[in-house]
Amino acid sequence: MPQISSTLLQRAVDEFAKLPGVGEKTAMRLVLHLLRQEVQDVNQFGQSVMQLRANVKFCKTCHNISDNDVCDICSNPRRDHSLICVVENIQDVMAVENTQQYRGLYHVLGGVISPMDGVGPGDLQIESLLQRAQAEEVKEIILALNPTMEGDTTNFYLYRKLAPLNVGVSVIARGVAQNDELQYTDEITLGRSIVNRTQFAVNM
Amino acid sequence: MPQISSTLLQRAVDEFAKLPGVGEKTAMRLVLHLLRQEVQDVNQFGQSVMQLRANVKFCKTCHNISDNDVCDICSNPRRDHSLICVVENIQDVMAVENTQQYRGLYHVLGGVISPMDGVGPGDLQIESLLQRAQAEEVKEIILALNPTMEGDTTNFYLYRKLAPLNVGVSVIARGVAQNDELQYTDEITLGRSIVNRTQFAVNM
Repeated sequence: MPQISSTLLQRAVDEFAKLPGVGEKTAMRLVLHLLRQEVQDVNQFGQSVMQLRANVKFCKTCHNISDNDVCDICSNPRRDHSLICVVENIQDVMAVENTQQYRGLYHVLGGVISPMDGVGPGDLQIESLLQRAQAEEVKEIILALNPTMEGDTTNFYLYRKLAPLNVGVSVIARGVAQNDELQYTDEITLGRSIVNRTQFAVNM
Repeated sequence: MPQISSTLLQRAVDEFAKLPGVGEKTAMRLVLHLLRQEVQDVNQFGQSVMQLRANVKFCKTCHNISDNDVCDICSNPRRDHSLICVVENIQDVMAVENTQQYRGLYHVLGGVISPMDGVGPGDLQIESLLQRAQAEEVKEIILALNPTMEGDTTNFYLYRKLAPLNVGVSVIARGVAQNDELQYTDEITLGRSIVNRTQFAVNM
């Protein structure tokens, strides 16, 4: 990268270049863009991340990101409190919410069991899930972890812990994705989609 | 985009999504990355852009970005003060500096003449260039604008203004770029590279 004639500029570029997927050239482009904005707009930008980091809270029940001690989903009486969907992180909560197909509650594990990365069950929000699962109102735990080796390992671990409790345990369906082409679908997925075929219905 | 359960998070994502080339998904990824950093690191990030915007200065002589009233290049007695390289913006200063082939001074126009974008000569730092060009010590003005329609128009405009003054005017060479393939080079560039061929030398 070229020498920059301003240490203020250099500092801002260095900070942006620390972001994931942002190289020095992109960092320079973003910083020069901000430099052309009004002072108050740049302050609003800077303050927004600092305030987020300083004041961020996580729901005491489901560990989703929240502005309050209990998140809007957990405190919403119109959600189905008999269902708990277990996900890895807050992005996955958003992804499931985005489907508009789920009206139950969530539980954010904060990761999956991964011995390679040094993540064991004790590093995840598993104890609090087991406590929630014992509540009278909870009927079903839906495991919605990523379909990976680590996700499957975590699913199995959770199943063994949940099985003795008086609660149903389900796992999200696997199969061919919308608009996938069968000839390019891996054999595990395609095989599973045949074994787990469902009764044909006009409105799938 | 999914509904986000935190207005603080939503605000930060919205701010990032205003950056050029950053969509909402990328914005979310960057903000969630910052959320995992230490409070002091996030503050350092936010402060860096706000301080840059609040305290940025531009060199009174060449209009390059600078921490002082006169930039390091203009105030450096070891630079060649008889040469002024005219560029469009501060990124171009960095690009030329990066070549390590130029030891003269710069003049940042702040754009090029572009009637389509409503940019006329009066919007650019042309008056101050003409004043600098009249100084005794200045021998040559090097026009290093982008090889585009607007760049060429601006080159021509500057040439007409500079010609009456007692100063040389040159323009950066155009021709085939390093590692270009001739068969894919446009005919204007290739034609010009033949017309403006130079004497062969072992060390180009």
